[in-house]
Amino acid sequence: MTGTPAPFTADDYTARMRRAARAAGDAGLDGVLIAPGPDLVWLTGYRPPETERLTLLVLRPGEDPALVVPALEAPDAAKAAPMLALRDWTDGTDPYETASDLLGRADRTGRTGGRFGVSDNAWAMHLLGLQNRLPDTAYVALTDALPMLRAVKDAAELQRLAAAGAAADAAYEEIREVRFAGRRENEVAADLAGLLRQFGHSQVDFTIVASGPNGANPHHEAGDRVIERGDMVVLDFGGLKHGYGSDTSRTVHVGEPDAEERRVHDVVRAAQEEGFRAVRPGAACQDVDRAARAVIVEAGYGEYFIHRTGHGIGVTTHEPPYMVEGEERPLVPGMCFSVEPGIYLPGRFGVRIEDIVTVTEDGGRRLNTTEREMAIVE
Amino acid sequence: MTGTPAPFTADDYTARMRRAARAAGDAGLDGVLIAPGPDLVWLTGYRPPETERLTLLVLRPGEDPALVVPALEAPDAAKAAPMLALRDWTDGTDPYETASDLLGRADRTGRTGGRFGVSDNAWAMHLLGLQNRLPDTAYVALTDALPMLRAVKDAAELQRLAAAGAAADAAYEEIREVRFAGRRENEVAADLAGLLRQFGHSQVDFTIVASGPNGANPHHEAGDRVIERGDMVVLDFGGLKHGYGSDTSRTVHVGEPDAEERRVHDVVRAAQEEGFRAVRPGAACQDVDRAARAVIVEAGYGEYFIHRTGHGIGVTTHEPPYMVEGEERPLVPGMCFSVEPGIYLPGRFGVRIEDIVTVTEDGGRRLNTTEREMAIVE
Repeated sequence: MTGTPAPFTADDYTARMRRAARAAGDAGLDGVLIAPGPDLVWLTGYRPPETERLTLLVLRPGEDPALVVPALEAPDAAKAAPMLALRDWTDGTDPYETASDLLGRADRTGRTGGRFGVSDNAWAMHLLGLQNRLPDTAYVALTDALPMLRAVKDAAELQRLAAAGAAADAAYEEIREVRFAGRRENEVAADLAGLLRQFGHSQVDFTIVASGPNGANPHHEAGDRVIERGDMVVLDFGGLKHGYGSDTSRTVHVGEPDAEERRVHDVVRAAQEEGFRAVRPGAACQDVDRAARAVIVEAGYGEYFIHRTGHGIGVTTHEPPYMVEGEERPLVPGMCFSVEPGIYLPGRFGVRIEDIVTVTEDGGRRLNTTEREMAIVE
Repeated sequence: MTGTPAPFTADDYTARMRRAARAAGDAGLDGVLIAPGPDLVWLTGYRPPETERLTLLVLRPGEDPALVVPALEAPDAAKAAPMLALRDWTDGTDPYETASDLLGRADRTGRTGGRFGVSDNAWAMHLLGLQNRLPDTAYVALTDALPMLRAVKDAAELQRLAAAGAAADAAYEEIREVRFAGRRENEVAADLAGLLRQFGHSQVDFTIVASGPNGANPHHEAGDRVIERGDMVVLDFGGLKHGYGSDTSRTVHVGEPDAEERRVHDVVRAAQEEGFRAVRPGAACQDVDRAARAVIVEAGYGEYFIHRTGHGIGVTTHEPPYMVEGEERPLVPGMCFSVEPGIYLPGRFGVRIEDIVTVTEDGGRRLNTTEREMAIVE
């Protein structure tokens, strides 16, 4: 399917909010507190400006959603999220008092206080404000309390993630054709950003072009190093298309690689394949990490794989579930996450290969499908 | 002075960190915990990628600064902030355990636990992680604990803020000459963004173009409304130049205004002038708000001035000190903040006039100096 997907409706958002409130109740919480950012976008579609003023969506099981909002932003909030009851507060008054009306009142059994999930990225200042105002309440980060809240994607979300992946793949096919040797990393990065936009991304989050020794730093972005013939170059890029994320990595070589470069790339490709094969309903997240890591350890490069194997993706390019040792929660059909092992040889070069994968009833399905063999570029 | 100012050095950052640690001690804190964002940029120059992984600068009086950092970002951190001792942690381990080594140990008197200031914008998830790991510790938001940490600017910072203000003023002089009537708000906004960049901004944070009834919504940004002859248009724009912020507002009119438009503009201009005149060392922040608000209340528009009078500016375009009722802390020479009263008539139009003002020994000095009379545009 091509073209722009139909926007999510107030009914879609209301259904998500109901689901979140119900999940909170099932998890023994009295509600969830949602801060501006990806949780709020996913639940309501509302993107307030990033400021220090308190905006907080309160979802409690069996109650209508309510949004604590600065008075001067209330008109925008009402327009963006007409299904919400607004509780506005004015500069110079205490926003935590406004919020405490929603959190602190007794429940049907007469009990006050309560235990609330809170967006990971809510400001510490606001959490402290609530803790001080309502000492009987307790809080737990949503990633710990409801880690699966946004993790399982529905059909409309999968369609968007697939479209974002296809756009990133189209960008990769084109970037292989540009000149690398003699140009700076950030020139190639600018090409990549342009291609992502050309293929429909509204937002570019990262365009890593890490050549030669820079490739050994997994979070190197792109600098003014001039790419040379003989360089390995890690490309890792993504952003948002129709509100959902892309994130893919391929490692290319400028001219012919030597034997060790070829070997390291083969190891990472095999590790990525084994990580992908470990994806199936009921497997633990950490199993994906273990499967990919085992290949790299076996090949003698274990100490050079210095990050987890993957992270979820949705309305952000980094979210639960995480494919990491210690994450024992099971994979569920509809989850989407990266599988991205790498080997980083300090001072020399790095290799990373990454696809977004979704869990189906039968196993994994890749949302990135460009070839994973090492491409030779000029 | 023109040209690019010399970058801040490791010595500059070390001096700021020492000052912050000392201020924490003076305030009865055992230290401050700095999250990625403006506090960390100001104290170290380091801008890590925005992720869920814990990065935390720990400053304790009499001790060397230490940075808790994800292992895969340690190389970038070491390069960006060579004066910091790094405590890195690896995916799959508990970052709060790494941090607790720095926070939880006994002080010289054998006491464990402690009370720490924490960046306002630190993630709630991380604060909860620390609270759970170290139940004897207590936390307070930096805006409450050390509100003046970044508020008083030194000469090098004032130079940058003045340059950013001058660039915004140059953008305003040019935007008055473009065509308004018949063009969409977001076309004029794009012109404004281009001008800010042309005059040296590296980052544009907002370009509000709020025409006709949109002007009555103080946080309207710019939309696809076509500006018409007879419209009032609120312009409010700013961003960062050489790492420091600009933020100025002027309200222009397309063609000749009517009597009421003129009157409302005069009231706001007088309010802005009175707010500015209230700026002097030792006055309370709220005095600036009261002085501006009194003019608007007196003129009968009090209910239509629905926000505080101002906010601080520095490495961000929104920070303490806030010019708001209830903020009794005194103004100190070197503080920089906006004075921006407004009147918002729902469904009709709005007017806002804003300058950045710095406190001197003698009173206030404007960092925006374009004329505040209502400009007539075409």
